Amino acid sequence: MHFSIQKNILQEAVSKVQKAVTGKSTMPILQGILIQAINGKLILLGSDKDLTIEATVDAEINTEGKIVVDSRLFGDLIRKLPNDNIEISTNENSTLTIKCLKSNATLVHMLADDYPAIPTIQEEKSITLPQNMLKNMIKSTIFATAHDETRPIFTGVLFEVKDNKVNLVAMDGYRVAIRTEGIDTNVELNNVIPGKTLSEVSKILEDSEEVINILFTTNHILFDLGKTKVISRLLEGEFIKYDSIIPKEYLLKTIARKDDLLNSIDRASLIGKEGKTNLVKLDIQEEKMIITSNSQLGMAREEININLQGDDLKIAFNSKYLMDILKIMDSEEVEMEFSTNVNPCIVKNKGKNNCTYLLLPVRMVE
Amino acid sequence: MHFSIQKNILQEAVSKVQKAVTGKSTMPILQGILIQAINGKLILLGSDKDLTIEATVDAEINTEGKIVVDSRLFGDLIRKLPNDNIEISTNENSTLTIKCLKSNATLVHMLADDYPAIPTIQEEKSITLPQNMLKNMIKSTIFATAHDETRPIFTGVLFEVKDNKVNLVAMDGYRVAIRTEGIDTNVELNNVIPGKTLSEVSKILEDSEEVINILFTTNHILFDLGKTKVISRLLEGEFIKYDSIIPKEYLLKTIARKDDLLNSIDRASLIGKEGKTNLVKLDIQEEKMIITSNSQLGMAREEININLQGDDLKIAFNSKYLMDILKIMDSEEVEMEFSTNVNPCIVKNKGKNNCTYLLLPVRMVE
Repeated sequence: MHFSIQKNILQEAVSKVQKAVTGKSTMPILQGILIQAINGKLILLGSDKDLTIEATVDAEINTEGKIVVDSRLFGDLIRKLPNDNIEISTNENSTLTIKCLKSNATLVHMLADDYPAIPTIQEEKSITLPQNMLKNMIKSTIFATAHDETRPIFTGVLFEVKDNKVNLVAMDGYRVAIRTEGIDTNVELNNVIPGKTLSEVSKILEDSEEVINILFTTNHILFDLGKTKVISRLLEGEFIKYDSIIPKEYLLKTIARKDDLLNSIDRASLIGKEGKTNLVKLDIQEEKMIITSNSQLGMAREEININLQGDDLKIAFNSKYLMDILKIMDSEEVEMEFSTNVNPCIVKNKGKNNCTYLLLPVRMVE
Repeated sequence: MHFSIQKNILQEAVSKVQKAVTGKSTMPILQGILIQAINGKLILLGSDKDLTIEATVDAEINTEGKIVVDSRLFGDLIRKLPNDNIEISTNENSTLTIKCLKSNATLVHMLADDYPAIPTIQEEKSITLPQNMLKNMIKSTIFATAHDETRPIFTGVLFEVKDNKVNLVAMDGYRVAIRTEGIDTNVELNNVIPGKTLSEVSKILEDSEEVINILFTTNHILFDLGKTKVISRLLEGEFIKYDSIIPKEYLLKTIARKDDLLNSIDRASLIGKEGKTNLVKLDIQEEKMIITSNSQLGMAREEININLQGDDLKIAFNSKYLMDILKIMDSEEVEMEFSTNVNPCIVKNKGKNNCTYLLLPVRMVE
């Protein structure tokens, strides 16, 4: 193998594929990046078996070949080289020589034949979405996935396409996040994507209308950005029927300025956090909501203006969960729908039907 | 106690004094900030006994008084309040009420009488320096202090004034850092200031010609910035006579572009770092320096142009120590003076006599 490439092009490709090299696999070769010089292209690949990222870049290929090189050492070295042409070639003794101006490094490499096979994606179903739309949808739901593995399906996000809509849904037993956008397609989909995969995809997506092509097979998903591809296994098992969990009716509804609500809960939560309860109480009255929290360290009382349709209510929440929701909402005003202080609360952007958040209250001892 | 103050003014003062609340003391009251409302001023004070920071701000004092409040909780709360007028008052049950617009918090406070006495500084000797000069001098030397306590004197920086010069000197057994500036004073000083103190002072100093007044007593130092004061104990014991360690003569001298040298060592060190030796070898020849490093992971060879006065030399260093020095130097070109590969190397800014760095080589096995 022998090729030349500009440093910044190589560095960008390396840092993309490095995101899939997590070190959580027990196979030492997965600490490496697979580098393939073939057909006038350089194809880099990083993987932890569940998630694989591939980047293809143009390079001047003198001799084709493929090797595996330690991800961290190779990545650090490329990053620190001057921004000039880099020449990389293999030697007979399983080493790789990297030359750039007067810099010269020789690294031991691993064999490409030992690298595990990457799942081949035989297209079964596919859809196309603008990158910025998908990025927003991921951000709006991923926080509600579970982080422990007791119910593995909750560590993923449901990717559902039906009735000309794409829905992303995450839940962890205490809350549900649903984000919806319109899509013009006949395809129907119902797959659960690991949260870790979507988190990495989100970092690669750009804030532009450029589209991304998403392909599904029975067990895998491929996010195809042309020069960058992300392949991930899908989670097995059935996602909860979220539709049946979301209450269709409510007894009272409040409209509040999102920042007022978020900042007030944030301050009140300082007291509860110190007391390790994380509890905030909402006292919903006509025209105002009083937010309180107390612990052995003291107490906080916040008051914000609201618009109330319906009767008064006192209800308590885990402040962190409520703030998680409010932090990622993007409208100036939020609507909250309640029934009783033991029924879930629904939070929505005011006047927009693109997201629905459900949060279970905490039972108050009074 | 009862006073009013603008949020941003209070927040700035709190975040200054919080720097001295390290949590390393076993006295619970030192987790708090002492707040004193007196003579139309608000005086805040944080301390870990060794280091004390005091900030004085204007406030509208309705009733004088003093209390101690938890540093983290109070600081977080003030930071999260809206930027408006804050009213703070004590209640009869050892609590403190903080009001800002519609926010209202009540915190349990501690008693000011339980707060340990802060050393009073009876001026014995003092000097005045521009803030930016002192900030630069600290940055240029503090990295060379020792971080372990086996020889406590090495955790400090010598602050020496003599012959119309102020010298800051740090060393840790492997390297010495000396930074010198001219000063017009008759005072003579020879004190060792804890590294931790200088590190915090450096964060408070501004990049301006505004002066800072520094007062010394037998056991303490006071950095007086007017509204902010930093009081620290001095380290006991005699600092090493650094003058006698610095070689006055050399056999060869190189001049190199600092960035070339730093970047080359940085890259070469990647290989040595992986091998846990941290070793880089310099092969100094006429017109060029060849920098190499090797471990079981591979090897690196870097070449830079230099100007050499004297004979060739091969010498090895701990790459981290050499980079620490080069990173904080501010001239385009650096001079290095060598004798043999077991004698210390001296590094200086080219054409400037404001700093001297000494570094011991690592003995090469060949």
